[in-house]
This record gives sequence, C-alpha cells and structure tokens, in this order.
Amino acid sequence: MDLRDGRISRRLAELGIELPDAAPPAANYIGAVRTGGLISVSGQGPVNGREILFEGRVGQDLSVEEGQQAARLTCLNVLSQVAVELDGDLDRVRRVVRLFGLVNSAADFDQQALVMNGASDLMVEIFGDIGRHARAAISAPALPFNISVEIDGIFAVA
Amino acid sequence: MDLRDGRISRRLAELGIELPDAAPPAANYIGAVRTGGLISVSGQGPVNGREILFEGRVGQDLSVEEGQQAARLTCLNVLSQVAVELDGDLDRVRRVVRLFGLVNSAADFDQQALVMNGASDLMVEIFGDIGRHARAAISAPALPFNISVEIDGIFAVA
Amino acid sequence: MDLRDGRISRRLAELGIELPDAAPPAANYIGAVRTGGLISVSGQGPVNGREILFEGRVGQDLSVEEGQQAARLTCLNVLSQVAVELDGDLDRVRRVVRLFGLVNSAADFDQQALVMNGASDLMVEIFGDIGRHARAAISAPALPFNISVEIDGIFAVA
Repeated sequence: MDLRDGRISRRLAELGIELPDAAPPAANYIGAVRTGGLISVSGQGPVNGREILFEGRVGQDLSVEEGQQAARLTCLNVLSQVAVELDGDLDRVRRVVRLFGLVNSAADFDQQALVMNGASDLMVEIFGDIGRHARAAISAPALPFNISVEIDGIFAVA
Repeated sequence: MDLRDGRISRRLAELGIELPDAAPPAANYIGAVRTGGLISVSGQGPVNGREILFEGRVGQDLSVEEGQQAARLTCLNVLSQVAVELDGDLDRVRRVVRLFGLVNSAADFDQQALVMNGASDLMVEIFGDIGRHARAAISAPALPFNISVEIDGIFAVA
Repeated sequence: MDLRDGRISRRLAELGIELPDAAPPAANYIGAVRTGGLISVSGQGPVNGREILFEGRVGQDLSVEEGQQAARLTCLNVLSQVAVELDGDLDRVRRVVRLFGLVNSAADFDQQALVMNGASDLMVEIFGDIGRHARAAISAPALPFNISVEIDGIFAVA
C-alpha cells in the first residue's frame, strides 16, 4: 500500500519490506478504530490481499520457522491497518503498546512464544525502541479460514 | 433491564430488542470498569438472567445459525453491562471500540468469523456508524459453564 | 522484588506475600508498557524467577485448587511487572482495570472461572475496592512452555 514519505517509510524500504494492501472490512467490523490517542487493530491473518499464505496448524502442517514467517506477515497486515487509519503516515506512531497473538497449534505444541517472535522482532526492526511492546502469545485449536496465526494490536499515536 | 429514554433506547424498541438484566458479578470481578473515557466489559455469555440459552460447541452441538444467535444474545449482555455503568443512558456511547469473541468450537470448525457476525451486525443495527468496531474472532476448545460464545468489549463513552 | 514503603507494600507484608522478581523480557517484547495513564502487562505465567511451578493442564495434570494457586502466583507476576514500571511504588495504582486469563485445560474442563478466582480474589485482597476488575476467563488447549495459566492485565495508574 502507499505510504507517505517519512522516517518509517524509508526504514521499511531499507528493510526491503512492502506493506500488503490493508484487508477491507469483511463485515460490520472494520480494520482499526482510533479513540483518544490509541488505535485498536482487528485480528489480522497471514494474507497478501485475498490470498492466505500460511494455512494450517503450527507443529503439524507448518514448522516453527514457517510459523514465524506467518507471524511476520500477519504483523505487516496489522501495520497496514494502522497506516490506513493514519492516512499513510506511520511516523505518527508513538508506541507499539500491545500485540496479542494466537497460534493455530497442533495438540501439545507449546512453542507459541517462538512463533510470535516473528512479529515482535519485526516491530523492533521497523520502529526501534518504541517498537518494544507488551505481548501475549497463546494457542488456538482452530482459527478462522484455517489461518495459522492471528494477531491484533494496540498502538499509541500522535 | 431499565434504560433511560433516549435515541438508543428508542432504537432498541424499534428493533424489538429488550436488554437482558445485567449478570451480577460472580466473584471478585465486576461486569464493567470505566477508566478515562473507556468502559472495559468482562467476558459475557449467551444467558438470560441465570439461564444459559446456547450451550455447547458450534459445529458439533450447535449450527452456525445458532452460534450467530448466541453471539447476538451474548452481545446484548455486553451492552447491558455498559448500560449499568452509564446509569441506563446508552446515548453516552461514543464508539464501540472493540469486540473480542471466543467461539466454543468443534475440532476443525473454522467459521468463527461468521458466528461473530451475529454480534457485529447487532452493534451496527443499534448504533449505526459508531457501532463499527475492531474485532477479533477466535476459537476456544472449551468455555466456562460450556457456554457456546464469550464476548468482551471496549466502549468509548462521554 | 523490592518495593517502596507504602500502603500496598505494607498490605502485602500483612498478607505474607512477597512479589517474585519480575521476569526479564524474553525477546523483543517487554513486561509492561505504560501509555497515558494505563499500564498494559504482557502475558505472565506461574513462575518464580526462571522456575515454572505449575505445569500442565488443569483438569488433567492439575486440580482446580492447584489451578487457583497457579492463577494466584501468575497474578503476582503480573503485579511485579506493574511494580517495575512504577519504580516499585504500587500506591500509584488507581484501578485494576482488566485481567485476561487463559487456563491450559483438559478437553471438556469448563471450570476456568473458578480457576481465575485465584487471581481475582488476590487483587481484592491486596487493593480492596480498586482491585475489582473486568475479566475474561477462557481455556487454551496449550500454552507456551506448558504453563497452566497465563494472565495479562491493564492497570490505571497515577
């Protein structure tokens, strides 16, 4: 998607990252809501437009490494929703407050924290210190459309 | 439960909706907490007073349509908690910020998003544009008291 | 961990409670983020330092009573993260806003609410009325490192 030129858009270019187009609202909910200085982002998945790239359960259909890639891609989709809400100006992000990550997990798979590092590392690569966030990483026995990872988040913005 | 006369109470009447009585706190937690301009509502279930109306797993004990009805009823209970916190005056709701929905799911059931539309559609029916919210819809392998849906939410209020 | 002398530190002493050392960040996320007047705490587990004290699934490896002890210990770890963010001064807590509890559950175990009372009761024992919080209690089919309970929370602070 198109971003305004700025510190974060240049950082993304340096990292060779292109944000996916923000998924349009699928129903009577929307991708992100801003209230006060906080943006609350809806649960996102590892998609590129309408294509789901990592389907299935980690520890069964996908390896931990693939799960991490799924978490990274999912987190880019979270960021796309933030960008839409900020008219493309990601320099207005003051803090990544919280990421909540659900990992579609095989029975007895307990490496959800490792999988979610794919998302957490990305936030710090992009935003530096203000990318350090509170986090919960949990397992789900199933996720909508059989996506492997679902992440929602809260961002403080100017 | 009793609401103050206003735009939202009249809209509920138009829709033929009566809010259930807010469930009393079951322990050392309460139905809703207001801080700043936000109300955080505790996880609610598909109950009418003390009676659980939709028990079991969607995709096994309940159909998707029944799951949507459960999500709708659960969301009415969320709204009852908001109403209690606002002394019955739902016109003070400025925005439905976020709904977090858990669907008690059969193994491999992945239509949680469809189920949660029962809640999302209701919010927009009642509140119009300020009812459009951020959302996460996930599965749970079990829920307290075997309820089929649990929803918590965040509302911005005046 | 070390707390500043104050009303809450004295209350903890009365209750015979010593807060565990706050777990250091395990990756590119941190234990707690403060923004505006809110602290968002990362998901914590039933640990004492690096030692996991209650492993496994409640209803299978652990009884409800052990689950409650796990929830209580986990909640102490949540509080330790708050204390770090407040330089040890827990008297600055204005309200326990929300606890979100995940119980690693045996198939068909549905007493997650009872388990989470171990955390909710503790908050009211320590903080009194401002300890009453919004809450969600759900099951998880697995949790990172096979911990039995994971809790995150939001606190309003001065």
